[in-house]
This record gives sequence, structure tokens and C-alpha cells, in this order.
Amino acid sequence: MAKQRIAAAPSVRRLPSYLHIIRQAQSEGVEFISGTVIANELNLEPIQVRKDLAITGIIGKPKKGYPTVALIAAIEHFLGWDDVQDAVLIGAGNLGTALSGYQEFQYHGLNIQAAFDSDKNKVGTKIHGVPVLAIDTLELQIKHFEAKIAILTVPSSQAQLITDKLIKAGIKAIWNFTNVKLKVPQDVVVQKEDLTSGYAMLCVKMKSFKSPDSFREQ
Amino acid sequence: MAKQRIAAAPSVRRLPSYLHIIRQAQSEGVEFISGTVIANELNLEPIQVRKDLAITGIIGKPKKGYPTVALIAAIEHFLGWDDVQDAVLIGAGNLGTALSGYQEFQYHGLNIQAAFDSDKNKVGTKIHGVPVLAIDTLELQIKHFEAKIAILTVPSSQAQLITDKLIKAGIKAIWNFTNVKLKVPQDVVVQKEDLTSGYAMLCVKMKSFKSPDSFREQ
Repeated sequence: MAKQRIAAAPSVRRLPSYLHIIRQAQSEGVEFISGTVIANELNLEPIQVRKDLAITGIIGKPKKGYPTVALIAAIEHFLGWDDVQDAVLIGAGNLGTALSGYQEFQYHGLNIQAAFDSDKNKVGTKIHGVPVLAIDTLELQIKHFEAKIAILTVPSSQAQLITDKLIKAGIKAIWNFTNVKLKVPQDVVVQKEDLTSGYAMLCVKMKSFKSPDSFREQ
Repeated sequence: MAKQRIAAAPSVRRLPSYLHIIRQAQSEGVEFISGTVIANELNLEPIQVRKDLAITGIIGKPKKGYPTVALIAAIEHFLGWDDVQDAVLIGAGNLGTALSGYQEFQYHGLNIQAAFDSDKNKVGTKIHGVPVLAIDTLELQIKHFEAKIAILTVPSSQAQLITDKLIKAGIKAIWNFTNVKLKVPQDVVVQKEDLTSGYAMLCVKMKSFKSPDSFREQ
């Protein structure tokens, strides 16, 4: 994969929490929202919020802020969340089942069409309305779906093997919840989720009470 | 809560992935590791890696890099991962069960002492070796544990109510997997996990193939 441009990544990561707040404001009839209001909700600096929002191309009005409807549209368009994103879930264990029932994803256009698992007891059932199919039929069946995204929650030992099959079947994006650094061709994107990152933040915040000259983030 | 210093947060978030790579190198007998080697593994810029590692206080040697043993110790000490962190899990549903079985946490000193759930069928059972206790005995029982950390995976509708109970029972840090912005006293830290952040990154990476002048992150 090409070198990343990490500068923008933290901004992209913050956009969903902004969207959450702006949508809530809109539902309460608020027509304009300022970067400062969003910043206060999230314990961020207003300048940071304005910089982050600027990557979506929207420009706020002095003193008034951003029109909420246009701001929601700009963020959703920037993230591609104004389109439906079809996905398949690989691994219907506890984590996979939790993800399939995560309502926030549905608000953001993520449509999980099917889950695949090796457990014969799960095949033929549904998790949160998503049918569970046999993983050994993956290559055969996946072509019936429009999905370009695979959400990978299999045991680490199988991660690369299954990734190779997914790529052969035409998957172009893998949301990787395993701790394996996947090898993929240039035209396939991988987003690796690492829950220990959040745990690291929690621990550093706890330490900041012992040595106050330390780091904070909500 | 005090204003956060967001500058350091992305660095803290990257430390666990560095630790993973450095530990692997150490297990293969590597005595020194350079920022460039770590950067290449993660598709990051070497200068970024060196800056991130500097927050732990360690200084590398020109041309040799960092001594692996000392680097591991420095990162673990910075994160507080050289100590055991006792925690309770609130909510033994799919996500809670998945987290209780997540081996990476155990490597980092996280010790889940007990889980609490409202489901009578789960109370008295174990999830990944962790006993499940009745949530209505939370305040009474939590004092028996040393835990200062609570991992919150309950439905959003109950998040604040249970948080209030946790704080009364002496919990000082909440790892919040709900989408509720919790109200807590000044001396309690909250780390909010938002899985939609990772999904936002995945979507932006996918779009970067359509408009190549865009953002990347592994």
C-alpha cells in the first residue's frame, strides 16, 4: 500500500462524533451550529473542530456557524455515508454478532448482507436479521452479493487464508478486527481496528491524575 | 473534565501497535530496532514513529535504534501496562463477552475480575472464565473487588444510571462502549470507544481510490 498521510486521519476519526452532535442539534430544530458548540460538547478546541470540518469542504459563516443541514450533508458525502455500503461479515462469533447489531452502522449506510461462519450450529440461523452462511461456501456465495467490504472477525490463525479468498471473490475493502497485519494487493484497502488503542488512552488518562502534566482526550 | 491535549492522543493510540512489533522482534532475538523498521511495518513515516516514541522518554542511538528490551519497558511503563489493572465488565452481551476473551488485553495487564448482567440466565455462569454476577447487586458486590476500571457495554438507555452507581461504588475510570456522553465528576476519567471512527477511516480510504489525492492510514 501507498504511504499514508496520517495528518488527516485523526480528523477523519473525529467526524463521526461531530455528526452525532450535529444530527442531534438538527433534530431539536437548530438551524446553525458553531465549531465552538461542537468543541464544548467533546472537550476539544474550537480551532481543531473548524480545521477538521474544513476537510469536508464546508465553510462556516462568521458568528452564525454552519447551517446544520448542509453540514450533515457535507460530512456524510465526505465519508461516503450518503450511499449504501454493502458488506459481508466473516465470523459470526461474539464480536461479529455484536457488530451486526450495532445500530450506528445502519445510520451510516452500512448494510451487512450476510455473515459467514464455520460453526455448523450457526449456519442457517440469523444474527440480528443477518443470515449466517457456511464459510466453506464463501467463494461460491460471495459473488451473489454486491458487497465490496468484508468485516473480518475470525480467529487470527485464519485471517490471511480467508483474506486471500475474499480478494479472489472481489472484495476491495477489509475492516480487520484481527491482530494480523494482512497482506493485500495494491487495490485493496485495509482498516485495522485495534481495541488496545482505546485501552492505552484510558490508561494514560488515569495516569494523568497522578502526574497532572500529562495528556487528556475525551 | 479539563480540556484535553489532543496533540498527544494520536501518539498514544499508536503505541500499542509499536509495542506489538517490538515484542515480536524481541521474541526473534533482535536486540536493537530502529524507528524506520517500525515505520515500514505500519506504513508510517519514520519521523512520526520517533516523535511518538519520544513521549515515553526513551532516546534512540544513531544508526542502531532503540534497545528492544528497554523500549518495551519504556512503552509499558508510560501506558501503565507494567502493572495489573483490575476491571469489572458491565454487560455480558455479545460485545462484553468478546472483550472478556480478547487476549491482547491480558498481555497488557488488564484483569477482568467479574462481569455484571441483568439477564438471569447468564448470572452464575462464566464468560471466558469471568464470573457473571447480577447487576442489581452491583453496588453491594463491586466493593469486594479492587477494580478501579469499569468496561461499559450496556444498552445506551441504561448507561448513565449504571455509571452513577459505578461512581458511588468507587470506580475511577470508565471505558465507555455505549454511544452516550456520560456525565462524571472531575476525578473520574472516561474513554469513549466509537467503532464508527474506524468505519469512517475505511470509507475514506475506499474513496481515495476514486480520487487519489486523498487520505491514507493503515
